[in-house]
Amino acid sequence: MNGARSLLTALVNEGVDVCFSNPGTSEMHFVAALDDVPDMRGILALFEGVATGAADGYGRVTGRPASVLLHLGPGLGNGLANLHNARRARTPLLAVVGDHALSHGRFDAPLASDITSIATTCSVAVTTSMTSNDVAADAVDAVRAAQGTPSGVSTLILPADVSWGECSEGGPSRPRTQSSARTPASDATVSAIANKMRAAAKPVVLVGGRAAQGAALTAAARCAEAVKATLMVETFPAITDRGAGTPQVTRLSYFGEFATAQLEGVDLLVLVDAASPAAFFAYPGASSDLVPPGTEVISLTDGGDHQGSLERLADALGAAPLPQAINPLAIAERPTGVLNASSLAAAVAATLPEGTIVVDESNTGGIHLAGATAGAPPHQWMTLTGGAIGYGLPAAVGAAVGRPESRVLCLESDGSAMYTFQALWTMAREELDVTVVILSNRSYAILNLELARVGAVADGSRAAAMLELTRPEIGFVSLSHAMGVPALRATTAEELTAALEASYAQAGPMLIEAVLPPGLG
Amino acid sequence: MNGARSLLTALVNEGVDVCFSNPGTSEMHFVAALDDVPDMRGILALFEGVATGAADGYGRVTGRPASVLLHLGPGLGNGLANLHNARRARTPLLAVVGDHALSHGRFDAPLASDITSIATTCSVAVTTSMTSNDVAADAVDAVRAAQGTPSGVSTLILPADVSWGECSEGGPSRPRTQSSARTPASDATVSAIANKMRAAAKPVVLVGGRAAQGAALTAAARCAEAVKATLMVETFPAITDRGAGTPQVTRLSYFGEFATAQLEGVDLLVLVDAASPAAFFAYPGASSDLVPPGTEVISLTDGGDHQGSLERLADALGAAPLPQAINPLAIAERPTGVLNASSLAAAVAATLPEGTIVVDESNTGGIHLAGATAGAPPHQWMTLTGGAIGYGLPAAVGAAVGRPESRVLCLESDGSAMYTFQALWTMAREELDVTVVILSNRSYAILNLELARVGAVADGSRAAAMLELTRPEIGFVSLSHAMGVPALRATTAEELTAALEASYAQAGPMLIEAVLPPGLG
Repeated sequence: MNGARSLLTALVNEGVDVCFSNPGTSEMHFVAALDDVPDMRGILALFEGVATGAADGYGRVTGRPASVLLHLGPGLGNGLANLHNARRARTPLLAVVGDHALSHGRFDAPLASDITSIATTCSVAVTTSMTSNDVAADAVDAVRAAQGTPSGVSTLILPADVSWGECSEGGPSRPRTQSSARTPASDATVSAIANKMRAAAKPVVLVGGRAAQGAALTAAARCAEAVKATLMVETFPAITDRGAGTPQVTRLSYFGEFATAQLEGVDLLVLVDAASPAAFFAYPGASSDLVPPGTEVISLTDGGDHQGSLERLADALGAAPLPQAINPLAIAERPTGVLNASSLAAAVAATLPEGTIVVDESNTGGIHLAGATAGAPPHQWMTLTGGAIGYGLPAAVGAAVGRPESRVLCLESDGSAMYTFQALWTMAREELDVTVVILSNRSYAILNLELARVGAVADGSRAAAMLELTRPEIGFVSLSHAMGVPALRATTAEELTAALEASYAQAGPMLIEAVLPPGLG
Repeated sequence: MNGARSLLTALVNEGVDVCFSNPGTSEMHFVAALDDVPDMRGILALFEGVATGAADGYGRVTGRPASVLLHLGPGLGNGLANLHNARRARTPLLAVVGDHALSHGRFDAPLASDITSIATTCSVAVTTSMTSNDVAADAVDAVRAAQGTPSGVSTLILPADVSWGECSEGGPSRPRTQSSARTPASDATVSAIANKMRAAAKPVVLVGGRAAQGAALTAAARCAEAVKATLMVETFPAITDRGAGTPQVTRLSYFGEFATAQLEGVDLLVLVDAASPAAFFAYPGASSDLVPPGTEVISLTDGGDHQGSLERLADALGAAPLPQAINPLAIAERPTGVLNASSLAAAVAATLPEGTIVVDESNTGGIHLAGATAGAPPHQWMTLTGGAIGYGLPAAVGAAVGRPESRVLCLESDGSAMYTFQALWTMAREELDVTVVILSNRSYAILNLELARVGAVADGSRAAAMLELTRPEIGFVSLSHAMGVPALRATTAEELTAALEASYAQAGPMLIEAVLPPGLG
């Protein structure tokens, strides 16, 4: 058995059975081993950013790591933006980066670069496997690091000769680490926080990460209700439950001005797997810190068991067994007439199938979505955690692979779509049930907004040209056809509603270009 | 004057007057300053890999740095693969990476990451500008570092508050570095090498980098002829002169087996701006070092003035004033019938306009190009210096911007095209005279070759599927139309020849999908 086969076998044994791949010469033994280890599913991407974003999406919907296979430093570079988003989402993910043979290192061959330094910027752990005998154990260690506390991207650098070398008899060596158990907050911490919450005049419970979904979110809602606190979710949660039957949660605004208003008068902020509120960008003359002066900020847990911590806290607060403030079912009316941000949101809300995973990279065009879909059938919502645009289409691939029983709805801005549109090809190839809606406003509209917000004065056409996506307009229907995905164009609310329903009624991917008013509309 | 305007003014004064841009919020003041500094040409790209590859192409054809504007660590990541290629090409290039305001650093905002560590892997110099007053001098220093010895990527990290802050009176501070003068090899070195060349039984002069073009290449040919040495060029030169009237040069083969044969019996290898020959990848049981045992390897110069060094060496060798072994004009006949790698090469050779810049990322489909075009009208040839695929289309953008009087012919493999096809949009927007030929064989054909060469045994369909670009086939004509570039499909040699001539006869970009036999043909 060579190192590559040993590696794949170890990964499958550890529960990692999907590999989003964009391989090169140094990864050929890994690829060949796919024929020997049939439980590992290899999924080809045309670009590394698709592979890494797909692994992020997969990890968010399953809670388990997928692997990605990348080709040396440049392949890692191409995948780095979506690994950055995965890092910010704390998504468990194993990045396997093929490298030159160890024996080849001293020649500084053209593809050689400092992989470790690049990987370290996005990873919770970086390991180079040095012998074929060690690679299985290294892989298990790397997977466990990805699932540790905090979870995240774990990078295993795999030299070609470690991959092709034969393992000596006796099989792979044993992993050196145990799976780390996640622990809840201590009784003392829980009791102290419960007391502070009872004493506070205007407390907020701010959830993020794994605390924004499932039983953890339910427990957080119980805690908040017990002391009439406001339950909030971080601005960009990795994945969160929404819609009818889920707790009522206020999302912290992206715009610092609004977030400041949301937090006005708050005297206690209890963080659960979330960072203390800060502005996304700095703006001249504005504070980056969004926490009101004098507000006490405490974190419930750093042991990783957020659900356990919240349930203990709910008990300490004597909370009711189920949250009372639950979103009621309220299906939106079908919109008619002009297609704009408002009618687009209504069309999405009026047609959303139960259990849909919404991958949201809609930016300015999606401003009305949250309100419109609050009473839609229960669904999950993924957001751009790290600000590196181009996550949506790849993450939709991974979500569909990880949750094949669900429809994935990817709401994608036109500018952002152009970073990683190659994901459409993988959707077609793997026949994934993904509906892509391109919010086409022919503009980096968010930047027109931000230009003014940072106080920049662009008084001529040369700066303005850097923010517009005209000359030429991008033909998204042609683009989609080129990638093998059926596509159509919607220019009215009725057309969009009909197109969404048509896509939900059939298997496989479909792209809908929603033609919105230009720019900020 | 704010920092951004001060920066742009300094760059223009230093001769950097093109900026390939993919900006975000933290770069809005830089963008706004484009309206104040009209001599800086901003060119928008839809993806950072296009911007960095374009700057590489621009630098190769002009010898001068362009700037690129990138958005924090993820933007740098997206641009990293083509910065890697630029690093290997030793292309002078200024990467301006916007960062969060210095005041924002302590909040670890979602887009924050370790930009310096990423940049260091591809740069000859990395600087963070810390005050608005310093930014102009920092920029000049950075540009001079890009043009130093060795030349390369120079990265200037620009925090948003340094960009928006006002410079105090007195204007920008002075740069701290002088332009570094390139120096030729010393008389002693030249004399010693001349003696060794005269004494050698089978000497080779191996040129690369800036020594593979123009007067330096001519001087190298004179040196080689004076002692009946073989003149060779590195496997992947950044840009080299070819065709009728240029010196006869043998290109070192990518395949180690062939390179070994090319170097058999060589007892002296004189390197001029080139690395000692080594295999591109390692292969089991094969030596990575391609230099025959016992061969002496010497480098003519490390002071950067390769032309001067070669001219001194030619004088020391008493070389004739002009090289004798010059490629004669020999226009290929127009091919007919089936379209394959051979007839494709003939079609290119039969139609190539004088002065064309060929951007070659043709991989397996381009195997006959070098032979076919040896006698074509004089032209220049750019290659994939760093092995990071996806360089061709972006580099063609930059070459066309840097040399607007020339036609650019981009020969692009289908698999490689899909990494950075967004470059087509910039070609359309800037109305660049680029002819793109997609060598469509529906396969990562080179990997099918490499799979066997590394001794991997893929005996099933699962590994094979990772190397094929079918299911679905990519529709390159649709893709091109989506990006605003006229396109057509050629399925015979006659159709390709006619399409090439049609594209050369009209201004602006055109894409031709050349449909080749599948895989390795």
